[in-house]
This record gives sequence, structure tokens and C-alpha cells, in this order.
Amino acid sequence: MIRVAICAPSRRLPEEDAARVSALAADFAGIELHFHPQCFLSHGHFAGTDEQRLAALVDCGNDSAFDAVWFARGGYGAARIAEDAIARLEPAAEGKTWLGYSDAGTLLGGLYRARIGRSVHAPMPVDIRRAGGEEAVRRTLGWLAGDRSGEEAGADEHPRVAFNLTTLAMLAGTPLMPGLAGHVVLLEEVAEHLYAVDRLFFHLTAHLGGIAGLRLGRIGDVPENDVEFGEDAAEIARRWCARHAIPFLGEADIGHDIANRIVPFGLAGGGCQT
Amino acid sequence: MIRVAICAPSRRLPEEDAARVSALAADFAGIELHFHPQCFLSHGHFAGTDEQRLAALVDCGNDSAFDAVWFARGGYGAARIAEDAIARLEPAAEGKTWLGYSDAGTLLGGLYRARIGRSVHAPMPVDIRRAGGEEAVRRTLGWLAGDRSGEEAGADEHPRVAFNLTTLAMLAGTPLMPGLAGHVVLLEEVAEHLYAVDRLFFHLTAHLGGIAGLRLGRIGDVPENDVEFGEDAAEIARRWCARHAIPFLGEADIGHDIANRIVPFGLAGGGCQT
Repeated sequence: MIRVAICAPSRRLPEEDAARVSALAADFAGIELHFHPQCFLSHGHFAGTDEQRLAALVDCGNDSAFDAVWFARGGYGAARIAEDAIARLEPAAEGKTWLGYSDAGTLLGGLYRARIGRSVHAPMPVDIRRAGGEEAVRRTLGWLAGDRSGEEAGADEHPRVAFNLTTLAMLAGTPLMPGLAGHVVLLEEVAEHLYAVDRLFFHLTAHLGGIAGLRLGRIGDVPENDVEFGEDAAEIARRWCARHAIPFLGEADIGHDIANRIVPFGLAGGGCQT
Repeated sequence: MIRVAICAPSRRLPEEDAARVSALAADFAGIELHFHPQCFLSHGHFAGTDEQRLAALVDCGNDSAFDAVWFARGGYGAARIAEDAIARLEPAAEGKTWLGYSDAGTLLGGLYRARIGRSVHAPMPVDIRRAGGEEAVRRTLGWLAGDRSGEEAGADEHPRVAFNLTTLAMLAGTPLMPGLAGHVVLLEEVAEHLYAVDRLFFHLTAHLGGIAGLRLGRIGDVPENDVEFGEDAAEIARRWCARHAIPFLGEADIGHDIANRIVPFGLAGGGCQT
């Protein structure tokens, strides 16, 4: 039996979404989900105060009854507690798999830097709210149960990571930023103007010297601007990569959508397994 | 006579705005404005191609007939040409004053790092489009003519700089980021959600260790979100400053508005003068 603790380091998950995810999980005989009650707290923008979110995350990470910690939802907030949470993790956290994406990448990145367990870019419980979102949630549940068919297909001989563009850009230079030399870095973005995407690539590529290459996931829901930007996202990525001598390796099958694929950080098949 | 070259490293300035600014400048007998024709070019998001914007900026900087270079408008774009432009500047650029704010801070920061001339946070020609914008434009024209009453009042014994929050956050860790140890850093923002402001402070304060302090300008036009954030901008800034042992020194009289005050980088009265 794989026991999965779910907490919400950023925004809250509505109870009805948790119920739908639990119902789906009943189809996976080897998986047991435990939603921490903190998921349903509310404090302004966040799923409870910083202290409440920090305590829940540390509880889940340090409880040896759990094999994995699945982040319920992104939406900003993990950055306020990640450094403190990682500092409080104990040996019981070291064998765990951590799953999520978007703002949860803040924790995946910090945990990968600290070499605590295995970070995995994967759909989250909140994806149940998308049209057809069951497919995304089942992908993570299936992966936890041992089905690797939901993994992003482009793995090569390099270790790799996957991040939301803004999330990784904001990690750069902070105590949470993992060393990514030799890695293939997969990036996706949602709901940002292309000028902001260009600006984020200006910033981030200056921090990615020494990576093995960059692959571009989907840049979804770009808002309309008063002028056309004049380049598409691949042209933007390619230009900034060239500037920093980073190999641009084409597309990645990740994004803020139901097709979002799973990317275990590091080498394929390496690291700890649930 | 103070001769001022105007170019547009980011977005284009409409001709009618230039005409209104030129008409205002006629009231300042000691000031002569020269709008570079590049200001009016258009290429997708930008005031001409990267090559056109770069060439105009280098032309203005290297022309010894000019005492100052005034950036016409922000809106993103300077990051694509700043490093190349600074590399091409010649001795004629060294005595110049560079004026602008918002995205133009990319250049002000890079020039300050390179110690080329004097960078000045100041209203731009495009501010003429704001209701009552003549007041802002006159503030810069008056300053160029020697009137220091438009300067931000909070100068102390420390050198200081002023930036848009996003602009400085994106400079952090790039070859354009100036060393700011010992400086008081003034920051303002516009049209960003408070969760994004919090995220930018998470990122930027990690890069500002060793500064003398931080002062907060106006965080204007915050869009409505589906939930109240739960803290105001001063609480956000104060919390992230505390985390990095940065003295939070209160408010600054800058912002994306007609009251935006002038902040010469460095020590008050120091550096080159027009």
C-alpha cells in the first residue's frame, strides 16, 4: 500500500474537490490518500496562516506512515514557508516522494537542492476542477501505483527537472534554487503576456549557465495585449538560450492543462521510489 | 544650453506625445530636446527592431553634442539591448545624464553598474499621456534646467537608487545588476496582484543582502483578485526585509503616477551634472 499525505502549502483546496479526488483514488487499490485538514483552511490568499501551512507540511513530511506528499494546489504561497519547512524535515522525510507543479515547484526545487526524497512534477488534486481533469489526476495516481506511462517522453541521458517559468525565475538566486548544471530544464507558463515571458527568459537564462539544455512546454492562456508581440514563445526561448549558449532542445509535453505529463526530477528511474 | 537626446529602448512614443512634450519644453529656455526618429518606429511590441533601438541608443549616448539621454517610454524592451548598448558606449557617453523609470530602469541599472554617467529615476515623455501629466514632464525638464525641488525628499547619507520592483527583480543576477551594498533602495510597482508583489519581494530581497535599507513607493492599480490577499504592500515589504535583515525605512514618494519624484542614483549632489 502506498500512503499519500496531501497538504496545501499555497492556496486552499475546496472540500468538494478533495471528495472527487478521493472517489477517483478508490479505483487504485494500492493507493491510500489522506487529506490533511489544513488543505481546507483559509487565511486571505492562503490555505491558512504561514504557521498553519508550515506545520501541516512538516507534519506530512516527518510522518513515517506516509510514502509520498502530494501538494493539493499551487497559486502562490509556498515561497513563504519553504525554507523553514525544509529546515525542519527529519530523517522520515528523506524517503518520500513529493509531487506537484506550478507554485509547488518552489518546494520541489528546494527539496531537490536539499536532496531530500524525490521531487516529481505531476498533476495535483486541484486539476480535478479542469474540464476532463480526472485524466490528469488519474495520471498522478497511476504513477504512484507504479504505471510510468504518464511520464513525459523526452527523457535522455541527462538528469532533468520541470518548472513553471515564473516559479523557477523567482527561485533563481534564493536559498531554494537547486544547482541545475548538467540538467535538461523543462519550462511551462500560463496566463502571462508574451512580453512578460520574454522578460522572465531574460532573467532566468542568466541563471542557467551550464545546464545541458532547455525544453519548452506549453505557454497557455496568453492574455491579449494592445499590440501583437511579434514573436512566439519558442522564438523567445530560442533567442535567450542562444544568448547564454544554452542548447534549445525543442518542445516539452507539460503545461497548466490536463495533458500535463509527469517529470521525476533527476535521472529517469533514479532516486527513491515509492 | 542643455541638449537632451530622446530615444525609446522599449515601446514606441506616438508623435503627438512628442509634440506636446516639445511644446512644454519651450517654456524652459535652457533646454533643447531632440527626439530621435527611432522613437516613432514600430515593430511588434517594440519601438523598432532590437537593432534599430540599439543603434539609436548608442547614437544618442555617443554623440558629444548631447548632455543627457532621456528615455521616452518604458513598457518592456530595454533588456533585449541593454548589455550590447552599454558595451558599445564610448568616452562621449561618460559625462551624460540618463533619465527614465519603469522598464528604463534596466538601462539605468546597467549604466550605474558600469559607472557610465549619471542614472536618474525621473518622469518620461510618455507621462504626458496621464491626466495632469504635464506636471510630471515639467518636473524632469525643471530638474534638467537645475531646479532640484522635484527630487524625492528622503535622501540621507547613503547613496540611493530607485526602481520598479519587477524591473529590479528581473535584473537580479544578470550582467546588468548593479552592486547595491550600502545603498538605500526605493521600489515602486504598478498593475500587479499583491500575491505577485509578495513573490517579487521573496525573490528580490534574497538578492539585496548588504543594502542600507529599503523604502516603498506606491504600489498602484492593484488588480482585483478572487480573494483578498490579507496584507498590504507595506506589510509584505516589511516581512521580507525582516527575513533578510534589511532595514525597512518606510515610504518613498515614487510611483507610476504624476507625483513620481526624481531620484538621482548615488549620493545626493554627487556624480556628474548636466
